[in-house]
Amino acid sequence: MAEAFGFTLTATDGLARTGLIETPRGGIRTPAFMPVGTAGTVKAMMPESVRETGADVLLGNTYHLMLRPTAERINRLGGLHAFMNWDRPILTDSGGFQVMSLASLRKLTEDGVTFKSHIDGSKHALTPERSMEVQRLLGSDIVMCFDECPALPADEETVARSMQLSMRWALRSKEAFGDRPGHALFGIQQGGVTRDLREESAAALRDIGFDGYAVGGLAVGEGQEAMFGVLDYAPDMLPKDKPRYLMGVGKPDDIVGAVKRGIDMMDCVLPSRSGRTGQAFTRRGVVNIKNARHSDDPRPLDAECRCPACRNYSRAYLHHVFRAGEMISGMLLTWHNLTYYQDIMQGMREAIAESRFEAWEREFHAGRADGDIPPL
Amino acid sequence: MAEAFGFTLTATDGLARTGLIETPRGGIRTPAFMPVGTAGTVKAMMPESVRETGADVLLGNTYHLMLRPTAERINRLGGLHAFMNWDRPILTDSGGFQVMSLASLRKLTEDGVTFKSHIDGSKHALTPERSMEVQRLLGSDIVMCFDECPALPADEETVARSMQLSMRWALRSKEAFGDRPGHALFGIQQGGVTRDLREESAAALRDIGFDGYAVGGLAVGEGQEAMFGVLDYAPDMLPKDKPRYLMGVGKPDDIVGAVKRGIDMMDCVLPSRSGRTGQAFTRRGVVNIKNARHSDDPRPLDAECRCPACRNYSRAYLHHVFRAGEMISGMLLTWHNLTYYQDIMQGMREAIAESRFEAWEREFHAGRADGDIPPL
Repeated sequence: MAEAFGFTLTATDGLARTGLIETPRGGIRTPAFMPVGTAGTVKAMMPESVRETGADVLLGNTYHLMLRPTAERINRLGGLHAFMNWDRPILTDSGGFQVMSLASLRKLTEDGVTFKSHIDGSKHALTPERSMEVQRLLGSDIVMCFDECPALPADEETVARSMQLSMRWALRSKEAFGDRPGHALFGIQQGGVTRDLREESAAALRDIGFDGYAVGGLAVGEGQEAMFGVLDYAPDMLPKDKPRYLMGVGKPDDIVGAVKRGIDMMDCVLPSRSGRTGQAFTRRGVVNIKNARHSDDPRPLDAECRCPACRNYSRAYLHHVFRAGEMISGMLLTWHNLTYYQDIMQGMREAIAESRFEAWEREFHAGRADGDIPPL
Repeated sequence: MAEAFGFTLTATDGLARTGLIETPRGGIRTPAFMPVGTAGTVKAMMPESVRETGADVLLGNTYHLMLRPTAERINRLGGLHAFMNWDRPILTDSGGFQVMSLASLRKLTEDGVTFKSHIDGSKHALTPERSMEVQRLLGSDIVMCFDECPALPADEETVARSMQLSMRWALRSKEAFGDRPGHALFGIQQGGVTRDLREESAAALRDIGFDGYAVGGLAVGEGQEAMFGVLDYAPDMLPKDKPRYLMGVGKPDDIVGAVKRGIDMMDCVLPSRSGRTGQAFTRRGVVNIKNARHSDDPRPLDAECRCPACRNYSRAYLHHVFRAGEMISGMLLTWHNLTYYQDIMQGMREAIAESRFEAWEREFHAGRADGDIPPL
């Protein structure tokens, strides 16, 4: 195991990159997809099963954990890794994004944000300094700068002001983070869909200097075309020798398009959330297991998949347990979706290493274009 | 693997018995506790994990499965074992008990019962012949006679009439079951808490002749004392060389008391249902994980337990995920409860084999009398 945090690029193919992030808690093969363990659990999954899907790293949510059970409590109990029985790397977000999407009575100042908990209405504050403290108490391996992220569309002046505030907070985050060997701090580029603002943000972050760089402020309602538009130039503004993380993305084709444009890490609740609502991602597109067409179908969800849902059960069973409201429905479909996501990542890593990313991508899109197997 | 259904007693200690039921799908070590897989899943558990707890056999509910996804569909899909990915023995109930507890507009005649589904209001009928057909379509290894079970307390005449109807249905069940090598049919003794009626019922069943015998009509609200009162004589009315099954029981001390009185098999939803409501059964009694006293407690639920909930998590974590409504709460506590139940069974099997059941029972009760570990 590495003692320090580090990143090595091992191959590139076009703009797509593959490599290895090293941490004292183990390596992260990139491009990497990080399942989201919001409140100390990847919903419906045992952590051993998450690992089995191929995940090297989880994302934890600072906002949720600081409210319940609190960062101080998790710290007393030995940190988030021990608490949730996941001994590999954990990345935590800064809490800023979820304050904006979940909390009520938010008040934003130069200092930070005050808000009321969506759980019990209690009052809290987050500042760059407090976010660094919470993430340290959690024991996070990869810490994110505290930033502000405006919803899109927004006028350019709003986006600019917000980005400049986030850059001042990035500096305060860096100072508050201090020197923590083995732990990484990532800066977050903002600037909406405006190239000049993205460059201004990237320059500010490069000046401060981080262990990795996130492309923030996307996947907030702008649509895939606008997102790819930004990803056509934004990653290149960030240091080549550091990991690039696209936050909160996405659907399978978003992920492939992001890797193609030079992104190394991503996270999203989509595979786990969809698993609990009966939606499966497969090599032939989305399958809604609640659809009556599956009720008598003895075939697996995805014949090429290695997950337990596909190896051991029929579509008819998955349909039945979804309709009956059984927990195993969410358990199996989440397991499947996370496995499929990890298989996409593994497929891309191998394709990049072997300089055949374009062919891999063609095959990926062709399978989806075929659509689901016809009903029996 | 045995080709025929069989039962061998290997040791007795007082009235307690240990032995092995053999079936073409594997052995069942007795005394056995059967987790309940109502609708084709032991709720919140993967079948591999159920097996890991030590379960040799599951119970499936005829009533639920005939309504959804229907026995005919399960049969087309290869039977219940393949459908739910459990290749070991399955016992199915007859459907009669749950018609009485769940369905609406029930109408009872000499022929059988008509009722409306609690799921969609559709009309159905169950007779001894239809119950045998449904259980055959499911592919059940151990089939239960179709019977009627009155709620207690009930006057003796009601209980007598109901028992005599059940005995006529037992004969019709036997005739409809026919000759199915490798599959077993169990008769069900009724008669409430009246010794003469229990003897009359047992005599009727012995005359017909079954592969095993259940003590039915208990655990329906009569209380432990009344139940043990019946168990003080009822098992002895049933053939010694066949398995004796106490249906729908129960709490850990019910189970130990039943085995002490000569019972070989039991089933109950309690360990799985309680697991989903935050109630854990431990060597030191019941622990309610939602209680605030656990919120900061780094200790395991039950230090002597081998299950993942106890090996890998603190009480504080289990408390947190319960309060946060996370699925892993039900998953872990169900896993724990089923493990604890199986450990009780294994403890009793070993104690009976080594003629030290009484000492084992004393230790079992002493641990519970101690109560939960004191708060920190």
